[in-house]
Amino acid sequence: MTRAAGAQRPISRGRGARRRVLTAALEVLDEHGLAGFTMEAVARRAGAGKATLYRHWPGTNALLVDAMDTTFVPLPVPDTGRVETDVAELLTGFVTLLATTPFPRLLAAFMDAAERDPALRTMHAELTRRRREPMLAVLTRAEQRGQLRPGLDPDLTVDLLAAPFFYRRLVAHRPIPPDLITAVITQVLGPHTA
Amino acid sequence: MTRAAGAQRPISRGRGARRRVLTAALEVLDEHGLAGFTMEAVARRAGAGKATLYRHWPGTNALLVDAMDTTFVPLPVPDTGRVETDVAELLTGFVTLLATTPFPRLLAAFMDAAERDPALRTMHAELTRRRREPMLAVLTRAEQRGQLRPGLDPDLTVDLLAAPFFYRRLVAHRPIPPDLITAVITQVLGPHTA
Repeated sequence: MTRAAGAQRPISRGRGARRRVLTAALEVLDEHGLAGFTMEAVARRAGAGKATLYRHWPGTNALLVDAMDTTFVPLPVPDTGRVETDVAELLTGFVTLLATTPFPRLLAAFMDAAERDPALRTMHAELTRRRREPMLAVLTRAEQRGQLRPGLDPDLTVDLLAAPFFYRRLVAHRPIPPDLITAVITQVLGPHTA
Repeated sequence: MTRAAGAQRPISRGRGARRRVLTAALEVLDEHGLAGFTMEAVARRAGAGKATLYRHWPGTNALLVDAMDTTFVPLPVPDTGRVETDVAELLTGFVTLLATTPFPRLLAAFMDAAERDPALRTMHAELTRRRREPMLAVLTRAEQRGQLRPGLDPDLTVDLLAAPFFYRRLVAHRPIPPDLITAVITQVLGPHTA
């Protein structure tokens, strides 16, 4: 959404209001899950009128997509010279995201919604693809430098490295001990080769 | 729920009705997700009165737990003599469950609910623990037979083997090609050692 210079726009339709509504949407989703995610609940939380919301978003799904998109913060690609260290850095950031932010709860609500709406599924697939990029860049570079075990496919390796943490947190509901990152890296990447 | 011999119970409170309500609950959850999972919707689908449902379950969460529990079918523990083949057999069953049944959609709804209710989280953790048992049995036996790479922890290995399939299906929304099972097993268990 861009704003024409000098345009006389009411504040309720500007960038600040849009950001306020999206923040409210994430809060409602976090607290009440998809079951409580209604245009009315978000409008109330944002201190905006329902009509205002409907001017920007045709319904809860469109609002959900825009709200989830604001949670995406691209991670820089580390380059320490050692693939295990680069991967550990990215996984540590990811585990922090899982342990200390509303991200996993939002993700759970989004996954449920994506099961029932092809547009959300496409959006979620794209969001996941972007989240995978730094790890894929690290592994592809390591492969080119001959630092990966022969036969290791970088794309599959991203799955193997990241999936156990999603699984522990959202499916098994088990704690993620600090040494799990090293254990996963050792088992997936194998003995240090470079 | 047990039924006293010779008790004069109305059919609506017997085993058949209970099973019908739980089936209806799974159907409602599958079609509408958690957002549409209400006592009223389940009662309507089951052809039962709302009051009948409330006599058995205090609310949607208790009903959800019982309904999910009916989806648990314990798998037999394969013993082909080769750990890779045993694991492949279990993973093939799991991929079929993900690809051809409502299980992943139910799981997504349940994960969202579990994020917001500690009782559901405990129940989901327990259900997951039971689902892991056959794979854990296969790997523990392989370890005892010296068929696992040294240093491989059976419990972590269950995570590494199963998680990529959850992740592909529910997070990344990517297809699960037939050769993915072999690729995951090879990368996680390493070269065949027995």
